[in-house]
Amino acid sequence: MEIIGIVAGCCTTASFLPQVVRTWKTKSVEDISLRMYLLLCLGVFLWLVYGLLVESIAVILANAVTLVLALAVLVMKIRYRGVSVKSINRNP
Amino acid sequence: MEIIGIVAGCCTTASFLPQVVRTWKTKSVEDISLRMYLLLCLGVFLWLVYGLLVESIAVILANAVTLVLALAVLVMKIRYRGVSVKSINRNP
Repeated sequence: MEIIGIVAGCCTTASFLPQVVRTWKTKSVEDISLRMYLLLCLGVFLWLVYGLLVESIAVILANAVTLVLALAVLVMKIRYRGVSVKSINRNP
Repeated sequence: MEIIGIVAGCCTTASFLPQVVRTWKTKSVEDISLRMYLLLCLGVFLWLVYGLLVESIAVILANAVTLVLALAVLVMKIRYRGVSVKSINRNP
């Protein structure tokens, strides 16, 4: 049963990686919601605090990695906002 | 201590709402990573299964709502992909 939780945690944590790669490549952030990533980073930070309080390695690890990735998207969203980017190869 | 987990869950779950609203309004999905939402929906679905197995209402509720919101973004990403959208009011 625990394996499902571990795989679930890996999927949700790793899921932000393609968005980081895409945004880093394209520098195009128009369609990404700033409010989503502000709220998401707050939530993930609180999960990290919760994990530290209940001393759960899995919760700490998953949310530490997710926080780094989500913050990367947030920083790029703020940095590249208003930067108009024509067609760039956008695969990931 | 539990309150931190509850607030964290509410933040991470609710965070997808502004992205759903934005994408619904703009129909513009170019900058959103398809792979992110495919992996995210898989992970959130597995968390839902995990919640059912461990019979945790909090895990079930948070991930059921997140799954609906993440699926909404995924469906719109697939549906509006390639739809070129000029300037539309893009606030949320």
